[in-house]
Amino acid sequence: MTYCVGMLLDEGLVMASDSRTNAGVDRVATFQKMFLFQEPGEKLFVLLTAGNLSVTQSTISYLNDCIEGKIEGQSLMEVTSMYAAARTVGRALRAVWEEDGPSLKAHDIEFNASIILGGQVKGGQLRLFQIYAPGNFVEASADTPYFQIGEVKYGKPVIDRIVTQKTSLAEAAKCALISFDSTMRSNVSVGPPLDLLLARRDSLDIALQTRLEDDNPYLREISRLWGEGLKNTFEAVPDPDWTF
Amino acid sequence: MTYCVGMLLDEGLVMASDSRTNAGVDRVATFQKMFLFQEPGEKLFVLLTAGNLSVTQSTISYLNDCIEGKIEGQSLMEVTSMYAAARTVGRALRAVWEEDGPSLKAHDIEFNASIILGGQVKGGQLRLFQIYAPGNFVEASADTPYFQIGEVKYGKPVIDRIVTQKTSLAEAAKCALISFDSTMRSNVSVGPPLDLLLARRDSLDIALQTRLEDDNPYLREISRLWGEGLKNTFEAVPDPDWTF
Repeated sequence: MTYCVGMLLDEGLVMASDSRTNAGVDRVATFQKMFLFQEPGEKLFVLLTAGNLSVTQSTISYLNDCIEGKIEGQSLMEVTSMYAAARTVGRALRAVWEEDGPSLKAHDIEFNASIILGGQVKGGQLRLFQIYAPGNFVEASADTPYFQIGEVKYGKPVIDRIVTQKTSLAEAAKCALISFDSTMRSNVSVGPPLDLLLARRDSLDIALQTRLEDDNPYLREISRLWGEGLKNTFEAVPDPDWTF
Repeated sequence: MTYCVGMLLDEGLVMASDSRTNAGVDRVATFQKMFLFQEPGEKLFVLLTAGNLSVTQSTISYLNDCIEGKIEGQSLMEVTSMYAAARTVGRALRAVWEEDGPSLKAHDIEFNASIILGGQVKGGQLRLFQIYAPGNFVEASADTPYFQIGEVKYGKPVIDRIVTQKTSLAEAAKCALISFDSTMRSNVSVGPPLDLLLARRDSLDIALQTRLEDDNPYLREISRLWGEGLKNTFEAVPDPDWTF
């Protein structure tokens, strides 16, 4: 499984991903699910991937080969808008589908892939997209300033309660990590290290890129304080006054 | 969708269910998903159902007709152990599968049903089972003293952090309602009224059976206090001290 979240805020972009993959409980491994394509000051693209690892890795390799001119296709580094970037990623997914889709289908394996794309092209806005397996996509807005892919449910309530477009980058990063903590507690197939990337709006560059291992002190502190806080909150809610 | 939870505690049993059903977003309705069969002082069976409404309703009707002798089959009111009760419910599911399964399959409709069964037979222990569509089942234990069916993920973290076998009936009921609050916030296809039933161990009777409507003051207070508590807990967790 996988869990990734992208948040589009007034201050900028928060992108986070876990790194655990599993093909059955006896084949658990660590793979990066965050990919960065950038030309500082000009273009910034951050991709988070979930789904069949062969499909998502192939999509990233396809995008790379297009950038390097080894495949004839739109290079992500030459697009002039985020809309064009999202279409380029969608087309890469379709190219992988054309190559592998029929054979996967013949083997009853789902062509399963989701990609969150966040970034900015000089002269345009910072934007956030969720791209589906067929290559179509939706865009985050003020009403829904975040996307999740993979194991999305356990970590959704805390984001829904905390994050709006006005949330600061630091607070949103904290919220993302709490969301990961809840998810990792409930689903062992989501696990560290966690990749976290922050980018300020209009900087066209990354502000922070870090990898948090299992024993990261801040991650451990969050987990402890959040757990204690939930228990204290629970205690503070009065019991029902029913007599029974 | 549906959300139901059953908890097996030293003090007794907590059973709770929502009552919203939907067959597409334009066909939302209210149906009870908690069913009580009892002979006070002798036998107590509480069933919570999730899945295809026609399958679960038919299973309950089948059990009823067996009790009333209109169908030749084991009557739930004549079993002498909780294990026999779970097998009786499993057989009812199989009888419905024999009747409707092939036709559902021909229409590409999944024979989808889960049942939580909690209760006690005089002379035996209070026990809790989760019964699957094929009629097989698992039993709750000290390590995992609760079962959930339906939309289980949003409301699981709070139960995991709070409930053990030693939790009191009142605290566990409070936890169940907080779990429902989290679920209803995140999935509109889970909704009130909520049915809640408490039974003390060895009483062989219900201690409380109540229906909480949307405007129930305690439900509203829980929702407000839990939401505020989460926000305060979030504020109390320090921001990361990264410079970026």
